[in-house]
Amino acid sequence: MLSFEITGEDPESSARAAELSTPHGVVRTPAFMPVGTAGTVKGMAAWELERLAPEMILGNTYHLLLRPGGERIARLGGLHRFMGWTGPILTDSGGFQVFSLAGRRTMDADGVTFSSHIDGDQHRLSPENVIETQATLGVDVAMVLDECLPYPVDSARAKRSTATSVEWALRGFARAEEIRRAEGDWDGGVFAIQQGSLDPALRRSSSEALAAVDFDGYAIGGLAVGEPTDALYEAVAMAAPMLPGHRPRYLMGVGYPEDILHAIGCGVDLFDCVLPTRSARTGKVFTSAGDLVIKNARFADDPNPLDEGCSCPTCAVYSRAALRHLFVSNEVTSVVLLTMHNLWFYLSLMREAREAIMTGRYTRFRARVEKDRSSTRGKTAPTENER
Amino acid sequence: MLSFEITGEDPESSARAAELSTPHGVVRTPAFMPVGTAGTVKGMAAWELERLAPEMILGNTYHLLLRPGGERIARLGGLHRFMGWTGPILTDSGGFQVFSLAGRRTMDADGVTFSSHIDGDQHRLSPENVIETQATLGVDVAMVLDECLPYPVDSARAKRSTATSVEWALRGFARAEEIRRAEGDWDGGVFAIQQGSLDPALRRSSSEALAAVDFDGYAIGGLAVGEPTDALYEAVAMAAPMLPGHRPRYLMGVGYPEDILHAIGCGVDLFDCVLPTRSARTGKVFTSAGDLVIKNARFADDPNPLDEGCSCPTCAVYSRAALRHLFVSNEVTSVVLLTMHNLWFYLSLMREAREAIMTGRYTRFRARVEKDRSSTRGKTAPTENER
Repeated sequence: MLSFEITGEDPESSARAAELSTPHGVVRTPAFMPVGTAGTVKGMAAWELERLAPEMILGNTYHLLLRPGGERIARLGGLHRFMGWTGPILTDSGGFQVFSLAGRRTMDADGVTFSSHIDGDQHRLSPENVIETQATLGVDVAMVLDECLPYPVDSARAKRSTATSVEWALRGFARAEEIRRAEGDWDGGVFAIQQGSLDPALRRSSSEALAAVDFDGYAIGGLAVGEPTDALYEAVAMAAPMLPGHRPRYLMGVGYPEDILHAIGCGVDLFDCVLPTRSARTGKVFTSAGDLVIKNARFADDPNPLDEGCSCPTCAVYSRAALRHLFVSNEVTSVVLLTMHNLWFYLSLMREAREAIMTGRYTRFRARVEKDRSSTRGKTAPTENER
Repeated sequence: MLSFEITGEDPESSARAAELSTPHGVVRTPAFMPVGTAGTVKGMAAWELERLAPEMILGNTYHLLLRPGGERIARLGGLHRFMGWTGPILTDSGGFQVFSLAGRRTMDADGVTFSSHIDGDQHRLSPENVIETQATLGVDVAMVLDECLPYPVDSARAKRSTATSVEWALRGFARAEEIRRAEGDWDGGVFAIQQGSLDPALRRSSSEALAAVDFDGYAIGGLAVGEPTDALYEAVAMAAPMLPGHRPRYLMGVGYPEDILHAIGCGVDLFDCVLPTRSARTGKVFTSAGDLVIKNARFADDPNPLDEGCSCPTCAVYSRAALRHLFVSNEVTSVVLLTMHNLWFYLSLMREAREAIMTGRYTRFRARVEKDRSSTRGKTAPTENER
């Protein structure tokens, strides 16, 4: 079981700092989880990840289940040993990826059947077996199976789906309780996922039904699926306070630095997003002065680091000119260097946010970051949040 | 100018240990130079390379000349700063690559004209301008322009070409002397390249003509171009002792660990080869017990490290099962982890060879390494040496 202690609250917003204790260590929140899809944060050796020192990382059950397989990872000593990562790990349930497999999956009341994108083999996710798989992996936080609705969606479907997601969450919780009681070798927590599209009444009923059981945390699901930024911001402001305040709140799959700062102000504690890692592979760079597209010809002779104020290993050594050269030359090293920088930027931002909350100046901190970054905001970064 | 001091000689072979002093530090030989083709050792961030601590690395003038350009690197402070590498750098002249561009280059008495493989632009290499470019890059060791003959080659062409290579070497040396005298901001050394295909008389005349000028080192060129291993071994044994013993001897583009151990026994001091780095990208792994093809299904559940006796960061953390998974999943991290291991293996082997020479037991050392590795030798590794 996990414990969660609030250590600071911002006087001018709902932002809070807290500590989530897990079997593999304490997660200081607000925290951003780098995405380790298939057993690695793409491009980062275990020792690079150690140097980045994220509070927690995210693994994708769907990908690990298909390859190399949950049982195999268990036989090899669990996901931590497999990845060479000794800190906390949260895994998603696989639902998000499976529900994206249009035409290759069929849903029923007891779960979803799908064919692997790798070899076409049939697999099945149920509310119970996704928890079993995550327990087998030995993760610190398991997520329940949910249906992530597309945007936009009609209200009848949203209502039906939200009710199913609640039912599945409760079934997952019950299975987790059995595993923890019976076997004793897994002591991770389970997070529920609030759904309800953009409908406040559905979000409310989802939250209330989930809060009737004492989950270890509560996630906001079904956002960052294509809705406009305004709608995302409104939905987060509406959805976050509905979730129990004595447990961590996790906004799944979001997002840009500005999106995260907004959500922190709404009382969200945990985040994950592929943006810093995926952007690194496409040459998009996050900096305190706005974002850069490194392949831009204007960097060809630029002797400066990516970000003057950055203390990451990449900025300590490489000029923009060298990084542009490595990127346009398709050098693998470019992925390593830009991933290191982008994750360093996100993780530093979260550390600074925590400090700002602890000293009661979060609102000013957020305004300053947004102002400093505003020069290029929206012009160069990827156009959609994805996980 | 460089200095070269022999610090140990093996009693049972021609192997020697030595120290080559360069502007960026001392190179303890025998030494293997990881190949940093286009401004990076593929997959290795500057801090990874620092951890590997090679005695010297190799850069490819041809690649750097085309992209990002020699003048640009010079404006950015030279190749060392560009790469974030503070140790010694040797660059090839570009000749090897240019002469591989069949159909896209024309040779005359004063050099070779070619079109870029990137954008088709016309470029020209001359005996003088390759030295100028390397001086501009600020390297520790510049190589002269030579013609690297294919295998097999008719004797008339070999004779003509060998004479041209000698003439170009002498012209390059003269130009280096001018640069070093006139400008004073470059104090690197220049190595000559012995050619002559597999013909002892040509190799002899090439060596003698080159030794008439006091180059800072002498390379054996034109081997590992497709000849059988027996012919390579014979040629090295024949060619190495022809080169002046008071200067470092460098066998270009070779090779397998066994090839290098043979050449060390013939009195060769320096090596470079793409094998450890390129093999990492195709999943071939060098170990003290022989070589592995990591994608092999038998590693899918193997909890052991790549090499039981290896102290590299990859072997400290990752199982063969995890490395197989990352490789078959096409994860970039796989390139980083296998490159780290393969280079660690090569560099450790060279360190052990130096120690064996210093303590007069090189022949036994070599026999033991070859015996330990012989179980899989030739079955799994790539089939051709290439630089």
